[in-house]
Amino acid sequence: MKLILLSGGSGKRLWPLSNESRSKQFLKLLKKDDGDYESMLQRVYSQIRYCMPKADVIISTGAKQKDSILNQLGHAVTILEEPSRRNTFPAILLSAAYLIFEQQTSLDEPVVILPVDPYAEIEYFETLRQMAQAVEQGTFPLVLMGIAPSYPSEKYGYIVPASSVHADSPTQVRSFVEKPSASVAEELIASGALWNGGVFACRLSYLAQHLHKNLNCSSFLDVMTQYDQLESTSFDYAVVEHETCIGMLPYHGYWRDLGTWNTLTGEMKDASMGRAILGEGAENTFVVNELSTPIVALGTKNLIIAASPDGILVSDLGKSSYMKPYVEHLGDTPMFEERRWGEYRIVEHTRQDDAETITKQALVHCGKTISFEHGISHKKIWILTMGRANIEIDGVCHCACAGDSFQIAPFQKHSLHALTEVSLLSVEFMESD
Amino acid sequence: MKLILLSGGSGKRLWPLSNESRSKQFLKLLKKDDGDYESMLQRVYSQIRYCMPKADVIISTGAKQKDSILNQLGHAVTILEEPSRRNTFPAILLSAAYLIFEQQTSLDEPVVILPVDPYAEIEYFETLRQMAQAVEQGTFPLVLMGIAPSYPSEKYGYIVPASSVHADSPTQVRSFVEKPSASVAEELIASGALWNGGVFACRLSYLAQHLHKNLNCSSFLDVMTQYDQLESTSFDYAVVEHETCIGMLPYHGYWRDLGTWNTLTGEMKDASMGRAILGEGAENTFVVNELSTPIVALGTKNLIIAASPDGILVSDLGKSSYMKPYVEHLGDTPMFEERRWGEYRIVEHTRQDDAETITKQALVHCGKTISFEHGISHKKIWILTMGRANIEIDGVCHCACAGDSFQIAPFQKHSLHALTEVSLLSVEFMESD
Repeated sequence: MKLILLSGGSGKRLWPLSNESRSKQFLKLLKKDDGDYESMLQRVYSQIRYCMPKADVIISTGAKQKDSILNQLGHAVTILEEPSRRNTFPAILLSAAYLIFEQQTSLDEPVVILPVDPYAEIEYFETLRQMAQAVEQGTFPLVLMGIAPSYPSEKYGYIVPASSVHADSPTQVRSFVEKPSASVAEELIASGALWNGGVFACRLSYLAQHLHKNLNCSSFLDVMTQYDQLESTSFDYAVVEHETCIGMLPYHGYWRDLGTWNTLTGEMKDASMGRAILGEGAENTFVVNELSTPIVALGTKNLIIAASPDGILVSDLGKSSYMKPYVEHLGDTPMFEERRWGEYRIVEHTRQDDAETITKQALVHCGKTISFEHGISHKKIWILTMGRANIEIDGVCHCACAGDSFQIAPFQKHSLHALTEVSLLSVEFMESD
Repeated sequence: MKLILLSGGSGKRLWPLSNESRSKQFLKLLKKDDGDYESMLQRVYSQIRYCMPKADVIISTGAKQKDSILNQLGHAVTILEEPSRRNTFPAILLSAAYLIFEQQTSLDEPVVILPVDPYAEIEYFETLRQMAQAVEQGTFPLVLMGIAPSYPSEKYGYIVPASSVHADSPTQVRSFVEKPSASVAEELIASGALWNGGVFACRLSYLAQHLHKNLNCSSFLDVMTQYDQLESTSFDYAVVEHETCIGMLPYHGYWRDLGTWNTLTGEMKDASMGRAILGEGAENTFVVNELSTPIVALGTKNLIIAASPDGILVSDLGKSSYMKPYVEHLGDTPMFEERRWGEYRIVEHTRQDDAETITKQALVHCGKTISFEHGISHKKIWILTMGRANIEIDGVCHCACAGDSFQIAPFQKHSLHALTEVSLLSVEFMESD
């Protein structure tokens, strides 16, 4: 059994913590039993490993998220970097191509495709296994997961079954209804319809057919190079809606789309994370603080206060989903990014006349390496402010410790290998004439 | 006529903008007609200059505030640095000693003493002039200002007149009542009592008597060196309460003590300062943002959001005066300080084992100089990130521009003279073994 996880949705719905390079699935906001925090991605991955210790996991994602996934999961999963961000249909065919051409997976193998960030109980993952079994039994070439609705939502799609739903065997799907009004949603729920959770199971052969129908290919590279010719559309639209024989298995457990501060704070075990003081009269107030600057809240009610180097949000919990137009054009350069070697934030950015200076503070994890194989086009100064590292500049190696600084000329090859946890100040001088 | 301005009150009532080195009177939050912002100190000083273009102004203050005053007013005023922070009685006698011994001011000269931060109309300053005239007329050796109360406050002192008050000539004071209950305050107001605004006028001889009664001195230096022997008490307690013949002149105009966010936001002309977006549903919400990070507020009501490198406050306007216990022990090292040459903030502070690294970003104004005559006890790196400066290290002068960096060894004398507006990154490496 193969699992394809789709990691998309870079965006600002959880601004200022989420940005162009850090999507909501990477935010470490969920408290584990041991007191540590994990991201939605890490939670889903550990649930998969608990239920299906041997399942092969492929994560399909864009270039910008690759480093975050590596940073959070290491090399335990296969990460497929989509040549460009399109939609779920091309992304799923790319993963199929990888299984077919690179892994030589049997075309009979069941494949289950799911989003990377469902917040659900372990039974959700048991249901994935059932879906794979249902595919192997062969009644339906395509099996979907139906999620028992907890309220008549207007923002989800509904799967209408042809007959009453059983937990153990798939029910034929009659039709789909996308984002109905609340009253229609109520009727749908009364008639037994379930939410469409965007989870699909089929044999690899099923995906192979769609792949060859859309592309003339005989290798994974073929698919990579022709990726932009695949229609940028959803798998639902391109495949599911045209399929006449679809089965559905239900999941009745807890499920949340933690896509807004309102829903996310509902799952936070503590009212605050990071440096925060909830003082006199603070009620139903949540603080998520990624800055080293302390936050004090007094007399606040039903509020989310979220702070990162990108910005500070202070919002009524119910209003936080309206933030998009306000934050859309705020600083398109993320002030904070996760990298496979650690993370960095921009601490200063000055512009004067034609000159521009950016000062970054990077944290490089022990044993990790930052490398600029071909140098960069401008002058740079590195200062080690904590820890020890081997720094190589134009082939000359230096054993560096806190207090050492290095001038790096334009196009000089340079790298840093951290021997301990390292804090590095990097000052870059650009001239734009 | 001499004016003595008392600049005290370092504290955190306007945290996070005010801190140990930056008191509320230095915050540039008041919008001028030309659109620029000024501090309470700058506003008071320009009002004084408007009313009394030739009055000599002395500001008595502690070491920590001296740089802020120089930065905001330049050398237009005499700044007296109190040897230690005590109270208004010793501070006023120190200023008197300066006038007597250093300026050889005539003992007949009227002196008016006032706090540095009243938020009042120009008539307030006209009243100061009237007070000086009343002192010269000689009926009362001591004349106070009575401020027409706008509500029965429990936090001010009240001056009870012996007869009905006239605007043009001083009325004899019958008694004082300190911080009465609201009901007593109502009675006091009904009977014609006014608030005590902490403004005193007398001849210099009056202060000289008190000086010589308390200290054996014949020079300003005598008073400086014996300063700690003066009782740390208020001028009200040590002098006013024992005086039997006191006059009062009333001020009927607008007057506010802008000591809390609630009162201060009442005088802000715009709902936000700095990078701030007040979005959907934000009502009676004020944002004061000194960070470069943007703040977005959504659906917030009756809120002050204030952010500086020291911290972020999110408070119900009515609750902001309760913050003291929460912020008292937060970071006693200010993350931001104003200096006579400009300002700096701490952008990074790391500690590991015995090593400590502090990275500061300083803005040095054109023409100003930072100087470390005897060096400092630890290693330092300077990087110019914007502008041009002359940097001298151990007697060697360098013409530096953006991109240049300098290693400064322990105890090496070093200085920077800014030839343009300069942005400087200073990284200091301390070892505490």
